[in-house]
Amino acid sequence: LRESSLSAESVERGDYAHYMLKEIFEQPRAIADTLAERITGKRVLEAALGPKAELLLPRVKSVHIVACGTSYHAGLIARYYIEQGAKLPCTVEVASEYRYRDPVVPPNTLFVAISQSGETADTLAALREARKLGYLATCAICNVPESSLVREADLTLMTRAGPEIGVASTKAFTTQLAALSLLGLVLARHNGMDASTEALFVRQIAHVPELVERTLKLEPQIKQWAQQFADKRHALFLGRGPTYPVALEGALKLKEISYIHAEAYPAGELKHGPLALVDADMPVVAVAPNNALLEKLKSNLQEVRARGGKLFVFADPDTGFQAEDGVEVLLMPEHIEAIQSPLIYTIPLQLLAYHVAVLRGTDVDQPRNLAKSVTVE
Amino acid sequence: LRESSLSAESVERGDYAHYMLKEIFEQPRAIADTLAERITGKRVLEAALGPKAELLLPRVKSVHIVACGTSYHAGLIARYYIEQGAKLPCTVEVASEYRYRDPVVPPNTLFVAISQSGETADTLAALREARKLGYLATCAICNVPESSLVREADLTLMTRAGPEIGVASTKAFTTQLAALSLLGLVLARHNGMDASTEALFVRQIAHVPELVERTLKLEPQIKQWAQQFADKRHALFLGRGPTYPVALEGALKLKEISYIHAEAYPAGELKHGPLALVDADMPVVAVAPNNALLEKLKSNLQEVRARGGKLFVFADPDTGFQAEDGVEVLLMPEHIEAIQSPLIYTIPLQLLAYHVAVLRGTDVDQPRNLAKSVTVE
Repeated sequence: LRESSLSAESVERGDYAHYMLKEIFEQPRAIADTLAERITGKRVLEAALGPKAELLLPRVKSVHIVACGTSYHAGLIARYYIEQGAKLPCTVEVASEYRYRDPVVPPNTLFVAISQSGETADTLAALREARKLGYLATCAICNVPESSLVREADLTLMTRAGPEIGVASTKAFTTQLAALSLLGLVLARHNGMDASTEALFVRQIAHVPELVERTLKLEPQIKQWAQQFADKRHALFLGRGPTYPVALEGALKLKEISYIHAEAYPAGELKHGPLALVDADMPVVAVAPNNALLEKLKSNLQEVRARGGKLFVFADPDTGFQAEDGVEVLLMPEHIEAIQSPLIYTIPLQLLAYHVAVLRGTDVDQPRNLAKSVTVE
Repeated sequence: LRESSLSAESVERGDYAHYMLKEIFEQPRAIADTLAERITGKRVLEAALGPKAELLLPRVKSVHIVACGTSYHAGLIARYYIEQGAKLPCTVEVASEYRYRDPVVPPNTLFVAISQSGETADTLAALREARKLGYLATCAICNVPESSLVREADLTLMTRAGPEIGVASTKAFTTQLAALSLLGLVLARHNGMDASTEALFVRQIAHVPELVERTLKLEPQIKQWAQQFADKRHALFLGRGPTYPVALEGALKLKEISYIHAEAYPAGELKHGPLALVDADMPVVAVAPNNALLEKLKSNLQEVRARGGKLFVFADPDTGFQAEDGVEVLLMPEHIEAIQSPLIYTIPLQLLAYHVAVLRGTDVDQPRNLAKSVTVE
């Protein structure tokens, strides 16, 4: 018999109207907890991944990541940490798909499974399948220490989000990103990243909780924007590179709790099909694009302006991007570094989904048809 | 000065109401032409890929595929031919995304670019970028022999679809699949597939044109189904494994020409979010699932039946799957082998999109906002 580490207080809603809103605002603390004792001022402490980490991680030559839903989006972002940072090939796959094919496993491949609950049926089955396939090691990124996923993996990096009650995941996602950035840095160190570069990235990651805190202060403006989405049936979310999975996650949040049909695309694919859909009923949300991309997006949307297509942009203050007719702009509180950007740009999209859902009067914490942990196949 | 090989006749609409419909019905011929002189009764003729193929292809140890839009969906399917068939790791990426990151290129990696026109700006730029990155070789899958892509790639496998006029690609897509299946078989042969297995797959591929011909005869039933989509604003397409990209392509066709917001998911992800959207306004289309998946889908949808969620299934006759209240079923004309299934299951989805668009009175061959070849970024 074990005593649960969850305090009563940590699962109370407090003054928040919904658990989801409380959990959104807990993110600075949750991310800080996830980083705590795992980084010094200069480096990531590899032992955070467990006693076997220092033996296994230097041998990793490629990475396979498997997850479902929101955790899958975290995996897609981790790919950037691992490919760009550590220069190791990385593939990311939906667990239910991975299970039913016969993956090719190159020598010295690390298998990473991501699941908030550690009981997601398809992810757990994928981990069990992976253990037969000759991987170097398996690693769980998980929020529940007592879970099956954690018990069965060789390595573990716990997220310390605390209990998440809202069905639509928020703090579990951003803490997964924090954990995965640490994994990326450890792998990068073993693949030639020098100590000063690591120190720089560690400082940038350590700054994330404060940056999230400042980003949460954008809530009043996002609440204003929400009014322009509340009567819509559709929305398109665009990103590029690591903000494409952020766009996927933003669209999923809106889907889950507001029942608006939101879909995400990599921005460059707009012209290859989805542009046909854009009209006054389909606002387009662009996440963290650079200037060059914004100019392209604006020109793409020129031709649909006549039918009322409208663009909402979340951008870095350095872009100096300005609102104009049909283009609304919300600048982040300060310049965002690449390693920070998936964590930071997720915040306004969570708030947008939340406020749209509240305006529509849906059951925010318990959206129809969905369960918190999908423990059946 | 070169004489165009396009005859006047080949770009006439004939008795068809739209180019798109004509091009859908040309597929048996287009696929047969793409296979012609490239397979014997027993094997794929490697020389079809050009004079350097026999030197380069035996050395391939992994594959990177890059494309946009419909061609990207062909790439996602090719991954199954290459990973399952040839047991080589294969990644597939949207060209506009590939260009803006710094991909890790393992030794002896083949770069494959897919584009109908061979002038798609992002795909061409990706090819040019790739030539600097230390790939073993580059390979173009293309429909236009005079194109930049073909001129600049080391290896080429031409699709022989003939000119495609409809903006929504149909025969270009299925001929890409035919070509990619041949590439997969050549790579598989170099990685241990024995002659009798190759002969079996070659026979299955050679049978595709006839199978497409038989599948086209399902048109009257699909036209009936189209009536149930014409007044909808949304649709969800589900597939699994190689039929997930088929679902993506089916959703894209419906988007492009009917302006219905159709989105595709791997079937196992339904419970991780999109199920919240399903109601009477969002029919769910399931592509080629096996029995086990169909039973899971049916149980997932039980809970949304009360709100009118309806399932439309395209299935193999071997499943013996039967229609019931809220579940419509259309069985393929005969048993479909795995290597054939992406080509065959695409056909009814093209016909569905076409007939829905006709009922909605859109400009089928020239959908709003879209260009045939995206030659700008």
